Amino acid sequence: MVVPMTFLAVDWGTTNRRVFRIDDGAVVASERDNKGAASMTPADYPAEVAGIRARMGDLPMLLAGMVGSTIGWREVPYVAAPAGIAALADGLAWVDERTAIVPGVAMRDPANPDVMRGEEVQLLGAVDAGLVPRDALLCQPGTHCKWVWMEDGRIARFTTAITGELFALLRGHGILARQLTGAVTAGDAFREGVRRGAARDLAAALFGIRAAKVLGYRDDADAASHASGLLIGADVAARLDEERGAHVHILADPTLGTLYASAIDTLGGSSALIDSRQAFVAGITRIQEHHA
Amino acid sequence: MVVPMTFLAVDWGTTNRRVFRIDDGAVVASERDNKGAASMTPADYPAEVAGIRARMGDLPMLLAGMVGSTIGWREVPYVAAPAGIAALADGLAWVDERTAIVPGVAMRDPANPDVMRGEEVQLLGAVDAGLVPRDALLCQPGTHCKWVWMEDGRIARFTTAITGELFALLRGHGILARQLTGAVTAGDAFREGVRRGAARDLAAALFGIRAAKVLGYRDDADAASHASGLLIGADVAARLDEERGAHVHILADPTLGTLYASAIDTLGGSSALIDSRQAFVAGITRIQEHHA
Repeated sequence: MVVPMTFLAVDWGTTNRRVFRIDDGAVVASERDNKGAASMTPADYPAEVAGIRARMGDLPMLLAGMVGSTIGWREVPYVAAPAGIAALADGLAWVDERTAIVPGVAMRDPANPDVMRGEEVQLLGAVDAGLVPRDALLCQPGTHCKWVWMEDGRIARFTTAITGELFALLRGHGILARQLTGAVTAGDAFREGVRRGAARDLAAALFGIRAAKVLGYRDDADAASHASGLLIGADVAARLDEERGAHVHILADPTLGTLYASAIDTLGGSSALIDSRQAFVAGITRIQEHHA
Repeated sequence: MVVPMTFLAVDWGTTNRRVFRIDDGAVVASERDNKGAASMTPADYPAEVAGIRARMGDLPMLLAGMVGSTIGWREVPYVAAPAGIAALADGLAWVDERTAIVPGVAMRDPANPDVMRGEEVQLLGAVDAGLVPRDALLCQPGTHCKWVWMEDGRIARFTTAITGELFALLRGHGILARQLTGAVTAGDAFREGVRRGAARDLAAALFGIRAAKVLGYRDDADAASHASGLLIGADVAARLDEERGAHVHILADPTLGTLYASAIDTLGGSSALIDSRQAFVAGITRIQEHHA
């Protein structure tokens, strides 16, 4: 169901911001810049929002992502998993009568706590738009990779892994940094890394990169791909060990999506790459419909 | 067997240097400073060695550790595991007729390469001095933690885990850094971390520290201990999963040794703390005896 409706949607992350003007379910204009939440104070938001309306149309606006966090405009309480589109719509934090912030989702389990803020719109949008089944395993790779189990179209539970951050730390600092300057590609070195990483003995596998260099077994041209394979392999294996041969719906840009797809395939699962922009637009449109 | 013999021994690491004067198997003088291999060039060593002799006695000298690496005085080839004291003695690199560098040990296995340089003297010394059995599992915690399987008094195989380095990276940079400023102690938060870390899903467990903070489940005063527990727990579990209920001989300072002992105990193993200085002195003395 798409009701006639025109509004603005902002995916306001930590470092980047994407703005969409959506007319009757279709994106008719968009912009992307680096004015993320980390680059502004709460006092900056009214002028930023007015600027967006001046450029994109004087319309109702939904904002999602870190804009609703402690580093954003105002902190919006998480809704608890399991959570679907209706829970997000009910949890909207209204700044004024036509401007609202979408809540994040939390796993309120002291033994296994987790949080997301921004990803929920893509995830539920993917389901609601029929891009993925209502019962499915979704993966959003990135600095902090989200693994999400959907049940009956709702976010039932999820796990965040700081896989991308660990790679950045190793690449930027520490003993392996000088070896990890090459490009990461989903070739043999990556897949070897995935298989080794699947043993889930990360701290030891990483030293192997150093030892392989010292003993002349591996060229540094391959080291970054191998390290990425170790980290992504450990991440994927931890999920697939729980659910052998799982089918994973990957929401990511093609580069990172291809690496995860290769790792999943190497470890006996299967995957499909989902258009994350389409999923976001679908999700934010469904939320807006709840209040149209 | 202790033959009448007086010599100087240097444990020359990356950042620190320890010098011992050993008379008939007993340390009669020692010094410790931060003139590690990273702080000098190859050309600096002759004067440094002459200075040591001027201060400690004009005696034969054995040097072990990173002094024999690419960042040291000269690169000394690794001897291959399995390796005992005799292999180290046979592999000594003589700088002149009374100054020699002890070789490191390598696992020359392309599927599972590993290297050590400096630890081998302590390890074999511990066995040769009777501080640990000739068939035993030894652990040297640190920036790069060594796990060593001794068979018949020789280093049969070993695994290096960059557990301490990962902790330093997380503490120094990245999203968790601000949470990890507290002291690390072997209390409840540490042991909870160990149990969680034993699931060997490190990238996910680490994000749990962030989520527990955001949701108010854990105070940051405990976060560093919990993170240390996660990392050490994953490291110990990877070794103990291979060998249930193992007894581990830990060569470490009391602080780090206590953390590893607590983790090993939590995960169903047992351990004993071995005096690493005594082990080094025993090992280097045995090597000197081979050439006395």
